[in-house]
Amino acid sequence: MNAATGSLFSLPASVTLTEVSPRDGFQNIEQWIPTETKINIVEGIFRSGVKNIEVTSFVSPKAIPQMKDAAIVAEYAVAMAKNTDVNIMALIPNVKGAERALSCGIRKVNYIISASPLHNKKNMNRTPQESFEALCELKKNFPEADVTLGVATAFGCPFQGKVPVDDVITLMRAARDIGINSFTLCDTIGVANPRQVETLLHEVKKNFSDIQLALHLHNTHGMALANIYAAMLQGVDRFESAIGGLGGCPFAPGAAGNAATEDLVNMLNRMEINSNIDLAKLLDVANQIRELVPCSISGMLVKARRYDEFSF
Amino acid sequence: MNAATGSLFSLPASVTLTEVSPRDGFQNIEQWIPTETKINIVEGIFRSGVKNIEVTSFVSPKAIPQMKDAAIVAEYAVAMAKNTDVNIMALIPNVKGAERALSCGIRKVNYIISASPLHNKKNMNRTPQESFEALCELKKNFPEADVTLGVATAFGCPFQGKVPVDDVITLMRAARDIGINSFTLCDTIGVANPRQVETLLHEVKKNFSDIQLALHLHNTHGMALANIYAAMLQGVDRFESAIGGLGGCPFAPGAAGNAATEDLVNMLNRMEINSNIDLAKLLDVANQIRELVPCSISGMLVKARRYDEFSF
Repeated sequence: MNAATGSLFSLPASVTLTEVSPRDGFQNIEQWIPTETKINIVEGIFRSGVKNIEVTSFVSPKAIPQMKDAAIVAEYAVAMAKNTDVNIMALIPNVKGAERALSCGIRKVNYIISASPLHNKKNMNRTPQESFEALCELKKNFPEADVTLGVATAFGCPFQGKVPVDDVITLMRAARDIGINSFTLCDTIGVANPRQVETLLHEVKKNFSDIQLALHLHNTHGMALANIYAAMLQGVDRFESAIGGLGGCPFAPGAAGNAATEDLVNMLNRMEINSNIDLAKLLDVANQIRELVPCSISGMLVKARRYDEFSF
Repeated sequence: MNAATGSLFSLPASVTLTEVSPRDGFQNIEQWIPTETKINIVEGIFRSGVKNIEVTSFVSPKAIPQMKDAAIVAEYAVAMAKNTDVNIMALIPNVKGAERALSCGIRKVNYIISASPLHNKKNMNRTPQESFEALCELKKNFPEADVTLGVATAFGCPFQGKVPVDDVITLMRAARDIGINSFTLCDTIGVANPRQVETLLHEVKKNFSDIQLALHLHNTHGMALANIYAAMLQGVDRFESAIGGLGGCPFAPGAAGNAATEDLVNMLNRMEINSNIDLAKLLDVANQIRELVPCSISGMLVKARRYDEFSF
């Protein structure tokens, strides 16, 4: 034990979560999940108090058959959230996806470019430059769309290995220059460590003073909550997560699930950081998903014997 | 994203781990593990570079039949580590246990008292006062024993709920007064959060300036690595962990496994904090244990498809 002291805090008072299980979770499950079940789960998420729900992905049904009912799920969710403060969001891989999402009434869309060229090519079958040109076209054709740029493989790439911080900053700056103000840094394969998270965020803060920034952290190596703690120490107060720790990346071998929303909310509750989410209702949804696709669950709390035994 | 910045580090350059799977892991497995297998696993741990190995518990064989071969395992391990810098340790629940451990050549012993009276009673069938009196007797009768006091339920109790920081400090001070200089704060049921870890450590540092301090953190709710990051920010550089995330507490309902040693070493490696442990050799042992008792494994890395794909 040495005397040197780092933190002793400087943490956000509240945190905003985006639930991505209906998109990032379900797209990675082979077994067909009926549209009705998806809608039922989206309703459960809504009832738990989550204010941002990524409900689907407007990808090609040939690429990801599980998302072929994107329009039905999206339209239902948009109607459900009407006259509330809940944001319904969708992933869009291209301009056509944006058009489909907007026609369902979705305004907030997530568009992904990888900081790693190799991963972008494998994930999107396009070079980063081609992906960026499509983003420019999207911004031009659909100025009403509220676009968040997800920077995939921001902390490491399964094909390229290390991803330089400068590559992340350069991509963000280019997007910033065409009017993107909202970003999500994604640890696509779950290899980020807390020191790296703080370092990258410090650089991002030096370079961009007034952006909305979120993190999307996979838990492949069990470090997601540690990384979220590190990120909060750097002032980040927005995170994407998935109930049950669902998720992965169909084009990133070995990628495992996201930070489990209920594990994250449990940690925030215990730290007295407000998320405005009802943990018991969240666990109901987690248990529903566990019954549906047991092997997809990687969250800890839902597997603990009874969370409320230790809810002091 | 707000501007406030907490950490940006002040981390130890190296960390010392104590591997507790042969004790905390195996004592929680009902299936009999043959003595030969236990010894083989202890050898694997030794070969991976771990410098502190808690090899067994000198409890009553009636209470925990799995530990009935404590003397054989201990004597083998002591012989194995002779003329090396590796410490062979054992848990001792009482004076008789200490006598047995010492007669096997073990000098470093861990003795447990709960900060929560209710848990102490259930775990040890003694009041904390009775436990403390036994510790005094132990120190008096066996001055050659190098005793570490493990403070169980230091972050929360399954029976009592919250455990006041003052109760932890008071127990440590009493032990300090009889010559104990080495302590392990235990999150027996895995409910500690990073804020709480920093807070408790800050108080401990204020009260004790020259002790050896380690943490023993269960991962029941997935927070162990986050808590270790928080602890390192407070200068803690000693942790107990168990390969595969084995472990629990037979007398703490719902308690799940420890921080998984391989997940911790992976995080430390990625943070460039030296643990002097060979991760590949550690994973060999983890895989051996996974074949032996698959359902006991809760570590993430050993379940990831191939850790070396992402070893950049």
